[in-house]
Amino acid sequence: MSHLRETLRSIPSFPADLPVFDWERAPEQPADLFAGWLTEAVDAGVPAPHAMTLSTSEPDGRVTARTLVLKDIDEHGWVFASRDDSPKARDLGANPFAALTFFWPQLGRQVRVTGAARKGARADSEEDFLARPETSRAAAFVGHQSEPLDSPETYRDALEDAVSLVTRDPSRVDRNWSTWAVIADEVEFWQASRDRGHLRLKYRLHGRSWERGLLWP
Amino acid sequence: MSHLRETLRSIPSFPADLPVFDWERAPEQPADLFAGWLTEAVDAGVPAPHAMTLSTSEPDGRVTARTLVLKDIDEHGWVFASRDDSPKARDLGANPFAALTFFWPQLGRQVRVTGAARKGARADSEEDFLARPETSRAAAFVGHQSEPLDSPETYRDALEDAVSLVTRDPSRVDRNWSTWAVIADEVEFWQASRDRGHLRLKYRLHGRSWERGLLWP
Repeated sequence: MSHLRETLRSIPSFPADLPVFDWERAPEQPADLFAGWLTEAVDAGVPAPHAMTLSTSEPDGRVTARTLVLKDIDEHGWVFASRDDSPKARDLGANPFAALTFFWPQLGRQVRVTGAARKGARADSEEDFLARPETSRAAAFVGHQSEPLDSPETYRDALEDAVSLVTRDPSRVDRNWSTWAVIADEVEFWQASRDRGHLRLKYRLHGRSWERGLLWP
Repeated sequence: MSHLRETLRSIPSFPADLPVFDWERAPEQPADLFAGWLTEAVDAGVPAPHAMTLSTSEPDGRVTARTLVLKDIDEHGWVFASRDDSPKARDLGANPFAALTFFWPQLGRQVRVTGAARKGARADSEEDFLARPETSRAAAFVGHQSEPLDSPETYRDALEDAVSLVTRDPSRVDRNWSTWAVIADEVEFWQASRDRGHLRLKYRLHGRSWERGLLWP
Protein backbone atom coordinates (compact mmCIF):
# COMPACT_ATOMS: atom_id res chain seq x y z
CA MET A 1 0.00 0.00 0.00
CA SER A 2 2.88 2.32 -0.80
CA HIS A 3 0.50 4.51 -2.81
CA LEU A 4 -1.52 5.19 0.35
CA ARG A 5 1.68 5.99 2.25
CA GLU A 6 2.67 8.59 -0.35
CA THR A 7 -0.82 10.13 -0.19
CA LEU A 8 -0.70 10.31 3.61
CA ARG A 9 2.74 11.93 3.56
CA SER A 10 1.52 14.66 1.25
CA ILE A 11 -1.43 15.78 3.42
CA PRO A 12 -0.82 18.93 5.44
CA SER A 13 -2.06 18.49 9.00
CA PHE A 14 -2.96 22.16 9.54
CA PRO A 15 -3.90 25.25 7.53
CA ALA A 16 -1.32 28.02 7.10
CA ASP A 17 -3.14 30.45 9.35
CA LEU A 18 -3.32 29.34 12.97
CA PRO A 19 -4.24 31.22 16.15
CA VAL A 20 -1.48 32.30 18.53
CA PHE A 21 -1.81 30.80 22.00
CA ASP A 22 -1.05 33.40 24.67
CA TRP A 23 -0.13 30.72 27.23
CA GLU A 24 1.25 33.20 29.77
CA ARG A 25 -2.23 34.64 30.20
CA ALA A 26 -3.98 31.27 30.36
CA PRO A 27 -6.73 31.10 33.04
CA GLU A 28 -6.03 29.42 36.38
CA GLN A 29 -8.75 26.83 35.78
CA PRO A 30 -8.30 24.49 32.80
CA ALA A 31 -12.10 24.30 32.42
CA ASP A 32 -12.13 28.03 31.66
CA LEU A 33 -9.43 27.72 29.01
CA PHE A 34 -11.22 24.71 27.58
CA ALA A 35 -14.56 26.53 27.39
CA GLY A 36 -12.79 29.38 25.56
CA TRP A 37 -11.20 27.06 23.02
CA LEU A 38 -14.45 25.14 22.50
CA THR A 39 -16.32 28.40 21.89
CA GLU A 40 -13.66 29.43 19.36
CA ALA A 41 -14.04 26.08 17.61
CA VAL A 42 -17.82 26.58 17.47
CA ASP A 43 -17.38 30.14 16.16
CA ALA A 44 -14.84 28.96 13.55
CA GLY A 45 -17.45 26.55 12.17
CA VAL A 46 -15.50 23.38 13.01
CA PRO A 47 -17.82 20.44 12.20
CA ALA A 48 -18.89 18.57 15.37
CA PRO A 49 -16.66 20.70 17.64
CA HIS A 50 -18.15 18.93 20.66
CA ALA A 51 -17.08 15.48 19.44
CA MET A 52 -14.41 13.78 21.55
CA THR A 53 -12.77 10.40 21.83
CA LEU A 54 -13.56 8.63 25.11
CA SER A 55 -10.86 6.06 25.90
CA THR A 56 -11.44 3.40 28.53
CA SER A 57 -9.87 0.12 29.55
CA GLU A 58 -11.49 -3.29 29.82
CA PRO A 59 -10.81 -5.42 32.90
CA ASP A 60 -8.17 -7.45 31.00
CA GLY A 61 -6.19 -4.29 30.13
CA ARG A 62 -7.53 -4.02 26.61
CA VAL A 63 -7.92 -0.37 25.67
CA THR A 64 -10.94 0.77 23.65
CA ALA A 65 -12.14 4.14 22.45
CA ARG A 66 -15.10 5.71 20.68
CA THR A 67 -16.35 9.11 19.62
CA LEU A 68 -19.17 10.78 21.50
CA VAL A 69 -20.31 14.30 22.23
CA LEU A 70 -19.59 16.50 25.20
CA LYS A 71 -22.82 17.51 26.96
CA ASP A 72 -21.56 20.14 29.38
CA ILE A 73 -18.78 21.18 31.70
CA ASP A 74 -20.16 21.50 35.19
CA GLU A 75 -18.69 21.68 38.69
CA HIS A 76 -17.86 17.97 38.45
CA GLY A 77 -16.10 17.96 35.14
CA TRP A 78 -16.54 17.05 31.49
CA VAL A 79 -20.02 15.56 31.06
CA PHE A 80 -21.22 12.90 28.63
CA ALA A 81 -24.10 10.41 28.66
CA SER A 82 -24.46 6.70 28.09
CA ARG A 83 -26.78 3.77 28.65
CA ASP A 84 -25.81 1.80 31.76
CA ASP A 85 -25.57 -1.45 29.79
CA SER A 86 -23.17 -0.08 27.16
CA PRO A 87 -19.58 -1.37 26.96
CA LYS A 88 -18.22 2.05 27.98
CA ALA A 89 -20.34 2.12 31.15
CA ARG A 90 -19.22 -1.43 31.94
CA ASP A 91 -15.56 -0.46 31.40
CA LEU A 92 -15.88 2.58 33.65
CA GLY A 93 -17.58 0.51 36.33
CA ALA A 94 -14.52 -1.74 36.49
CA ASN A 95 -11.84 0.96 35.99
CA PRO A 96 -12.94 4.59 36.27
CA PHE A 97 -9.82 6.00 34.58
CA ALA A 98 -10.76 7.66 31.30
CA ALA A 99 -9.27 9.98 28.73
CA LEU A 100 -11.09 12.50 26.56
CA THR A 101 -9.38 13.80 23.44
CA PHE A 102 -10.58 16.80 21.45
CA PHE A 103 -8.95 17.68 18.14
CA TRP A 104 -9.76 20.73 16.06
CA PRO A 105 -7.39 20.58 13.06
CA GLN A 106 -8.83 23.77 11.55
CA LEU A 107 -7.29 25.63 14.52
CA GLY A 108 -4.29 23.32 15.03
CA ARG A 109 -5.52 22.56 18.53
CA GLN A 110 -5.83 19.50 20.72
CA VAL A 111 -7.04 19.15 24.31
CA ARG A 112 -6.38 16.02 26.36
CA VAL A 113 -8.37 15.47 29.55
CA THR A 114 -7.60 12.59 31.94
CA GLY A 115 -9.09 11.55 35.25
CA ALA A 116 -11.67 9.29 36.84
CA ALA A 117 -15.21 9.17 35.50
CA ARG A 118 -18.14 9.22 37.92
CA LYS A 119 -21.81 8.64 37.25
CA GLY A 120 -24.06 11.68 37.60
CA ALA A 121 -27.00 12.12 39.96
CA ARG A 122 -30.32 10.54 38.92
CA ALA A 123 -31.91 13.97 38.47
CA ASP A 124 -29.14 15.13 36.09
CA SER A 125 -29.48 11.97 34.04
CA GLU A 126 -33.27 12.40 33.77
CA GLU A 127 -32.95 16.05 32.84
CA ASP A 128 -30.39 15.17 30.15
CA PHE A 129 -32.60 12.40 28.80
CA LEU A 130 -35.67 14.61 28.49
CA ALA A 131 -33.64 17.33 26.74
CA ARG A 132 -32.79 14.92 23.93
CA PRO A 133 -34.74 15.16 20.67
CA GLU A 134 -37.60 12.68 20.32
CA THR A 135 -35.72 10.33 17.95
CA SER A 136 -32.67 10.32 20.20
CA ARG A 137 -34.84 9.40 23.18
CA ALA A 138 -36.42 6.66 21.12
CA ALA A 139 -32.99 5.37 20.07
CA ALA A 140 -32.02 5.11 23.72
CA PHE A 141 -35.16 3.07 24.50
CA VAL A 142 -34.26 0.63 21.73
CA GLY A 143 -31.30 -0.58 23.77
CA HIS A 144 -29.13 -3.60 22.82
CA GLN A 145 -26.25 -1.22 22.01
CA SER A 146 -23.21 -3.04 20.60
CA GLU A 147 -24.96 -6.42 20.55
CA PRO A 148 -25.05 -8.40 17.27
CA LEU A 149 -27.88 -7.29 14.97
CA ASP A 150 -29.35 -9.55 12.28
CA SER A 151 -30.42 -6.81 9.86
CA PRO A 152 -30.95 -3.04 9.63
CA GLU A 153 -34.69 -3.74 9.30
CA THR A 154 -34.80 -5.29 12.80
CA TYR A 155 -33.30 -2.09 14.18
CA ARG A 156 -35.61 0.15 12.16
CA ASP A 157 -38.67 -1.76 13.37
CA ALA A 158 -37.49 -1.47 16.98
CA LEU A 159 -36.80 2.23 16.49
CA GLU A 160 -40.27 2.76 15.03
CA ASP A 161 -41.86 1.07 18.05
CA ALA A 162 -39.75 3.20 20.37
CA VAL A 163 -40.76 6.39 18.54
CA SER A 164 -44.43 5.47 19.06
CA LEU A 165 -43.72 4.91 22.74
CA VAL A 166 -42.07 8.32 23.09
CA THR A 167 -44.85 10.05 21.16
CA ARG A 168 -47.50 8.48 23.41
CA ASP A 169 -45.62 9.25 26.60
CA PRO A 170 -43.20 12.18 26.05
CA SER A 171 -42.22 12.44 29.71
CA ARG A 172 -41.09 8.82 29.90
CA VAL A 173 -37.49 8.50 31.09
CA ASP A 174 -35.15 5.62 30.31
CA ARG A 175 -33.85 4.50 33.71
CA ASN A 176 -30.82 2.98 32.00
CA TRP A 177 -29.68 6.41 30.87
CA SER A 178 -26.97 8.12 32.89
CA THR A 179 -24.75 11.13 32.67
CA TRP A 180 -21.11 10.73 33.58
CA ALA A 181 -18.44 13.30 34.37
CA VAL A 182 -14.71 12.94 33.88
CA ILE A 183 -13.21 14.58 36.96
CA ALA A 184 -9.99 15.82 35.43
CA ASP A 185 -6.68 15.69 37.26
CA GLU A 186 -4.64 16.51 34.15
CA VAL A 187 -5.61 18.69 31.20
CA GLU A 188 -3.23 19.43 28.37
CA PHE A 189 -3.62 22.10 25.70
CA TRP A 190 -1.67 21.79 22.47
CA GLN A 191 -1.41 24.59 19.93
CA ALA A 192 0.30 23.85 16.63
CA SER A 193 2.37 26.43 14.85
CA ARG A 194 3.42 26.41 11.21
CA ASP A 195 7.09 26.92 12.10
CA ARG A 196 7.00 23.83 14.35
CA GLY A 197 7.05 25.98 17.50
CA HIS A 198 4.15 23.96 18.90
CA LEU A 199 3.07 24.89 22.42
CA ARG A 200 1.96 22.39 25.06
CA LEU A 201 0.56 23.69 28.32
CA LYS A 202 -0.27 21.10 30.95
CA TYR A 203 -2.42 21.59 34.04
CA ARG A 204 -1.97 19.14 36.92
CA LEU A 205 -4.18 19.05 39.98
CA HIS A 206 -2.26 19.25 43.27
CA GLY A 207 -4.66 19.08 46.16
CA ARG A 208 -7.27 21.68 45.27
CA SER A 209 -5.18 23.89 43.03
CA TRP A 210 -3.95 23.55 39.49
CA GLU A 211 -0.26 23.77 38.66
CA ARG A 212 0.55 24.49 35.07
CA GLY A 213 3.66 24.40 32.97
CA LEU A 214 4.93 24.01 29.43
CA LEU A 215 6.07 20.66 28.07
CA TRP A 216 8.61 19.92 25.33
CA PRO A 217 6.49 19.45 22.20
CA MET B 1 -22.14 26.66 32.62
CA SER B 2 -25.69 26.12 31.49
CA HIS B 3 -25.05 28.50 28.60
CA LEU B 4 -22.37 26.15 27.26
CA ARG B 5 -24.74 23.21 27.67
CA GLU B 6 -27.40 24.95 25.60
CA THR B 7 -24.82 25.75 22.91
CA LEU B 8 -23.63 22.15 22.81
CA ARG B 9 -27.18 20.83 22.52
CA SER B 10 -27.85 23.02 19.52
CA ILE B 11 -24.87 21.83 17.44
CA PRO B 12 -25.73 19.32 14.72
CA SER B 13 -23.23 16.48 14.70
CA PHE B 14 -23.45 15.78 10.98
CA PRO B 15 -24.40 17.54 7.75
CA ALA B 16 -27.73 16.73 6.07
CA ASP B 17 -26.16 14.91 3.15
CA LEU B 18 -24.32 11.74 4.16
CA PRO B 19 -23.00 8.83 2.09
CA VAL B 20 -24.90 5.55 2.10
CA PHE B 21 -22.87 2.61 3.38
CA ASP B 22 -23.43 -0.48 1.25
CA TRP B 23 -22.43 -2.81 4.09
CA GLU B 24 -23.55 -5.97 2.29
CA ARG B 25 -20.85 -5.41 -0.31
CA ALA B 26 -18.14 -4.52 2.21
CA PRO B 27 -14.73 -6.08 1.39
CA GLU B 28 -13.56 -9.20 3.22
CA GLN B 29 -10.55 -7.40 4.66
CA PRO B 30 -11.21 -4.46 6.99
CA ALA B 31 -7.98 -2.81 5.80
CA ASP B 32 -9.47 -2.59 2.30
CA LEU B 33 -12.68 -0.97 3.56
CA PHE B 34 -10.62 1.37 5.71
CA ALA B 35 -8.40 2.41 2.79
CA GLY B 36 -11.54 3.15 0.77
CA TRP B 37 -13.07 5.31 3.50
CA LEU B 38 -9.79 7.12 4.10
CA THR B 39 -9.47 7.88 0.39
CA GLU B 40 -13.03 9.21 0.37
CA ALA B 41 -12.21 11.43 3.37
CA VAL B 42 -9.15 12.76 1.52
CA ASP B 43 -11.19 13.35 -1.64
CA ALA B 44 -13.93 15.11 0.37
CA GLY B 45 -11.34 17.57 1.67
CA VAL B 46 -11.69 16.55 5.32
CA PRO B 47 -8.98 18.47 7.22
CA ALA B 48 -6.28 16.14 8.60
CA PRO B 49 -8.13 12.99 7.44
CA HIS B 50 -5.14 10.92 8.56
CA ALA B 51 -5.37 12.15 12.16
CA MET B 52 -6.36 9.51 14.72
CA THR B 53 -6.56 9.15 18.46
CA LEU B 54 -4.11 6.60 19.84
CA SER B 55 -5.32 5.30 23.22
CA THR B 56 -2.97 3.41 25.52
CA SER B 57 -2.89 2.37 29.15
CA GLU B 58 -0.25 3.11 31.76
CA PRO B 59 0.96 0.27 34.01
CA ASP B 60 -1.35 1.45 36.83
CA GLY B 61 -4.44 1.20 34.59
CA ARG B 62 -4.61 4.90 33.83
CA VAL B 63 -5.81 5.42 30.27
CA THR B 64 -4.29 8.15 28.12
CA ALA B 65 -4.79 9.21 24.54
CA ARG B 66 -3.38 11.64 22.02
CA THR B 67 -3.82 12.59 18.38
CA LEU B 68 -1.25 11.56 15.81
CA VAL B 69 -1.15 10.78 12.12
CA LEU B 70 -1.44 7.47 10.33
CA LYS B 71 1.65 6.77 8.25
CA ASP B 72 0.55 3.75 6.26
CA ILE B 73 -1.38 0.52 6.30
CA ASP B 74 0.96 -2.33 5.51
CA GLU B 75 0.89 -6.11 5.89
CA HIS B 76 1.31 -5.68 9.67
CA GLY B 77 -1.40 -3.15 10.30
CA TRP B 78 -2.04 0.52 10.96
CA VAL B 79 1.34 2.28 11.10
CA PHE B 80 2.40 5.30 13.14
CA ALA B 81 5.76 6.56 14.42
CA SER B 82 7.11 7.72 17.76
CA ARG B 83 10.30 8.37 19.67
CA ASP B 84 11.24 5.40 21.88
CA ASP B 85 11.40 7.60 24.98
CA SER B 86 7.89 9.06 24.54
CA PRO B 87 5.13 8.22 27.04
CA LYS B 88 3.18 6.38 24.33
CA ALA B 89 6.14 4.11 23.53
CA ARG B 90 6.64 3.47 27.25
CA ASP B 91 2.93 2.63 27.66
CA LEU B 92 3.01 0.22 24.72
CA GLY B 93 6.15 -1.43 26.06
CA ALA B 94 4.26 -2.30 29.24
CA ASN B 95 0.87 -3.09 27.69
CA PRO B 96 0.71 -3.48 23.91
CA PHE B 97 -3.10 -3.13 23.69
CA ALA B 98 -3.99 0.03 21.80
CA ALA B 99 -6.99 1.61 20.16
CA LEU B 100 -7.03 3.90 17.13
CA THR B 101 -10.09 6.07 16.51
CA PHE B 102 -10.76 7.92 13.27
CA PHE B 103 -13.65 10.34 13.03
CA TRP B 104 -14.73 12.15 9.87
CA PRO B 105 -17.80 14.19 10.86
CA GLN B 106 -18.17 15.65 7.36
CA LEU B 107 -19.04 12.12 6.21
CA GLY B 108 -20.71 10.95 9.43
CA ARG B 109 -18.12 8.20 9.72
CA GLN B 110 -16.06 6.66 12.46
CA VAL B 111 -13.58 3.78 12.38
CA ARG B 112 -12.38 2.05 15.55
CA VAL B 113 -9.31 -0.20 15.36
CA THR B 114 -8.16 -2.29 18.33
CA GLY B 115 -5.33 -4.72 18.79
CA ALA B 116 -1.77 -5.06 19.99
CA ALA B 117 0.89 -2.61 18.81
CA ARG B 118 4.27 -3.90 17.73
CA LYS B 119 7.44 -1.98 16.95
CA GLY B 120 8.52 -1.96 13.31
CA ALA B 121 11.77 -3.26 11.86
CA ARG B 122 14.82 -0.96 12.13
CA ALA B 123 14.89 -0.47 8.34
CA ASP B 124 11.24 0.67 8.24
CA SER B 125 11.84 3.14 11.06
CA GLU B 126 14.90 4.60 9.29
CA GLU B 127 13.06 4.86 6.02
CA ASP B 128 10.18 6.64 7.73
CA PHE B 129 12.52 8.99 9.50
CA LEU B 130 14.36 10.01 6.32
CA ALA B 131 11.05 10.62 4.52
CA ARG B 132 10.09 13.28 7.06
CA PRO B 133 10.54 16.93 6.11
CA GLU B 134 13.75 18.55 7.39
CA THR B 135 12.06 20.45 10.24
CA SER B 136 10.19 17.33 11.37
CA ARG B 137 13.46 15.39 11.46
CA ALA B 138 15.03 18.22 13.44
CA ALA B 139 12.09 18.22 15.88
CA ALA B 140 12.63 14.52 16.48
CA PHE B 141 16.33 15.12 17.26
CA VAL B 142 15.38 17.74 19.84
CA GLY B 143 13.92 15.01 22.06
CA HIS B 144 12.70 15.59 25.65
CA GLN B 145 9.12 15.06 24.46
CA SER B 146 6.56 15.60 27.25
CA GLU B 147 9.22 16.69 29.78
CA PRO B 148 8.75 20.04 31.56
CA LEU B 149 10.03 22.99 29.50
CA ASP B 150 11.08 26.29 31.06
CA SER B 151 10.25 28.54 28.10
CA PRO B 152 9.35 28.42 24.40
CA GLU B 153 12.74 30.06 23.70
CA THR B 154 14.59 27.07 25.11
CA TYR B 155 12.74 24.84 22.68
CA ARG B 156 13.25 27.19 19.75
CA ASP B 157 17.01 27.33 20.43
CA ALA B 158 17.17 23.55 20.61
CA LEU B 159 15.16 23.25 17.40
CA GLU B 160 17.48 25.71 15.64
CA ASP B 161 20.52 23.64 16.67
CA ALA B 162 18.80 20.50 15.46
CA VAL B 163 17.95 22.11 12.11
CA SER B 164 21.66 22.96 11.64
CA LEU B 165 22.55 19.37 12.44
CA VAL B 166 20.09 18.04 9.86
CA THR B 167 21.24 20.53 7.22
CA ARG B 168 24.89 19.53 7.74
CA ASP B 169 24.10 15.81 7.75
CA PRO B 170 20.84 15.14 5.86
CA SER B 171 21.23 11.36 6.01
CA ARG B 172 21.51 11.27 9.79
CA VAL B 173 18.93 9.02 11.39
CA ASP B 174 17.57 9.34 14.91
CA ARG B 175 18.02 5.89 16.44
CA ASN B 176 15.27 6.69 18.95
CA TRP B 177 12.74 6.90 16.14
CA SER B 178 10.53 3.88 15.55
CA THR B 179 7.53 2.94 13.54
CA TRP B 180 4.82 0.92 15.22
CA ALA B 181 1.91 -1.04 13.79
CA VAL B 182 -1.39 -1.78 15.46
CA ILE B 183 -2.14 -5.36 14.49
CA ALA B 184 -5.91 -5.18 14.48
CA ASP B 185 -8.08 -7.97 15.82
CA GLU B 186 -11.26 -5.85 15.76
CA VAL B 187 -12.20 -3.08 13.36
CA GLU B 188 -15.55 -1.34 13.50
CA PHE B 189 -17.06 0.92 10.86
CA TRP B 190 -19.81 3.33 11.84
CA GLN B 191 -21.90 5.24 9.31
CA ALA B 192 -24.32 7.86 10.60
CA SER B 193 -27.62 8.45 8.92
CA ARG B 194 -29.84 11.51 9.33
CA ASP B 195 -32.87 9.40 10.17
CA ARG B 196 -30.96 7.74 13.02
CA GLY B 197 -30.62 4.50 11.06
CA HIS B 198 -26.90 4.42 11.90
CA LEU B 199 -25.01 1.37 10.65
CA ARG B 200 -22.27 -0.38 12.60
CA LEU B 201 -20.29 -3.12 10.90
CA LYS B 202 -17.76 -4.94 13.03
CA TYR B 203 -14.94 -7.18 11.81
CA ARG B 204 -13.46 -9.69 14.28
CA LEU B 205 -10.41 -11.80 13.59
CA HIS B 206 -10.98 -15.52 14.11
CA GLY B 207 -7.80 -17.39 13.45
CA ARG B 208 -6.71 -16.07 10.07
CA SER B 209 -10.05 -14.95 8.74
CA TRP B 210 -12.29 -12.02 9.48
CA GLU B 211 -15.87 -12.49 10.58
CA ARG B 212 -18.13 -9.52 10.19
CA GLY B 213 -21.55 -8.58 11.36
CA LEU B 214 -23.81 -5.66 12.18
CA LEU B 215 -24.17 -4.33 15.71
CA TRP B 216 -27.12 -2.52 17.29
CA PRO B 217 -26.24 1.16 16.96
